Amino acid sequence: MNKPILGIIGGVGPLATAYFMEILIKKTPAVCDQDNMPMIVFNDPQIPDRTAYILDHSKPNPQPEMTKVARWLQEAGADYLAIACNTAHYFYDAIKDAVDIPVVNIMEETSRRISSIAGKGARVGLLATEGTVSSGVFQSYFEQEGLQTVTPDSDRQKRVMSLIYDGVKANAPYDPKELLSLAEDLHDRGCDVVVCGCTELSVIYQDLMDDSGTQVPGWLFDSLDILADRCVELYQWARKTGGDIQM
Amino acid sequence: MNKPILGIIGGVGPLATAYFMEILIKKTPAVCDQDNMPMIVFNDPQIPDRTAYILDHSKPNPQPEMTKVARWLQEAGADYLAIACNTAHYFYDAIKDAVDIPVVNIMEETSRRISSIAGKGARVGLLATEGTVSSGVFQSYFEQEGLQTVTPDSDRQKRVMSLIYDGVKANAPYDPKELLSLAEDLHDRGCDVVVCGCTELSVIYQDLMDDSGTQVPGWLFDSLDILADRCVELYQWARKTGGDIQM
Repeated sequence: MNKPILGIIGGVGPLATAYFMEILIKKTPAVCDQDNMPMIVFNDPQIPDRTAYILDHSKPNPQPEMTKVARWLQEAGADYLAIACNTAHYFYDAIKDAVDIPVVNIMEETSRRISSIAGKGARVGLLATEGTVSSGVFQSYFEQEGLQTVTPDSDRQKRVMSLIYDGVKANAPYDPKELLSLAEDLHDRGCDVVVCGCTELSVIYQDLMDDSGTQVPGWLFDSLDILADRCVELYQWARKTGGDIQM
Repeated sequence: MNKPILGIIGGVGPLATAYFMEILIKKTPAVCDQDNMPMIVFNDPQIPDRTAYILDHSKPNPQPEMTKVARWLQEAGADYLAIACNTAHYFYDAIKDAVDIPVVNIMEETSRRISSIAGKGARVGLLATEGTVSSGVFQSYFEQEGLQTVTPDSDRQKRVMSLIYDGVKANAPYDPKELLSLAEDLHDRGCDVVVCGCTELSVIYQDLMDDSGTQVPGWLFDSLDILADRCVELYQWARKTGGDIQM
């Protein structure tokens, strides 16, 4: 395969991984198969649940399996990595330390993009798993970029978790408009921007975008979409300069 | 990762590969991430165009790159392989011979399924690339199952190629109804069943299925959908029996 090859730590969740591949392909300027980005995807659904472990350290720790997948991807030829899961970024440093190749960070990329669009000091509503919210990792990336984080109240946080776990991860029906309603509440509470900070919510965000009857508000952003933009940008630049991934 | 692991020779085309992952996940009975099928996907868009080579052997031969990817997947831990491209099955024997693990054959699975549904002697309309149609490989699998093949006239075959190459593979807009119109013509010519025998057409077939305003006729089948059913069935059976993939 042509270099550079993107390695994807997938299966967290599985549908979000397939959707990540799809948006990477759709975002790559290509007029034929051969123009597309080479990728290796390890879709490993046996990685233990991230939120379960973050909330209760007596639960199985997903870190060893994720660092193993990262090393497999490097051995299989990947030149840079991405993880199709926000909550997994709780373990970002361990994954980064396990390999010698760059790991694109969805939270860092999202924070930078939002800061450059909405400006320092902007209030950002965060829709994410209980694991992501309670760990405070996304909040600290936002803070580094001068952004303030607002999270849903506890009843609405439960509705976010239900959309993710009882809907997308369970392969069960869900109402995409529920995501809009939860985002609108944060916007009504004074958020300049609302971020889908969980890749299952990214799948629903895409449902909304695909439904031509729905107007997706300009203040609603998707972290996986931002990660895909960044991966395509890194690939295109490396191809242009004939060199390595530069981060 | 839990065994057995499905290896996917992907990138042929890239969007069809992402879509194949998506339908595999949606077809797997799963109530959480961890219930899903483990997969390794090598999305290698540098595999030369299959149809171009089949029609003109002076063009780059995709076989060496495809057998290389098959071996990479085996080395990376795959227990069985699938190829998200019908036209690539012109090279099926070479790919199968390059590895020691089973390779699920989309043409064989499609022929068997259609024969069991429509019965021996049924007339099957084939919508596929010029490479697949002219190589006669799909037709010979149909014949082994007692099915007769009908292909579009040359003007309509050009429209099929345009949908595949100027539409899906070029990431350009296309009208999903064009696929229905081409299929209806074959049905009007006396076909009992029409098969989407190209994975780019599978992407369009899915567009039609997703559009709740469209009634997809019961006589229209998709080869990639059938391949996904078979991969899920093989996985489920292997998990149940605690053994290897049995084909």
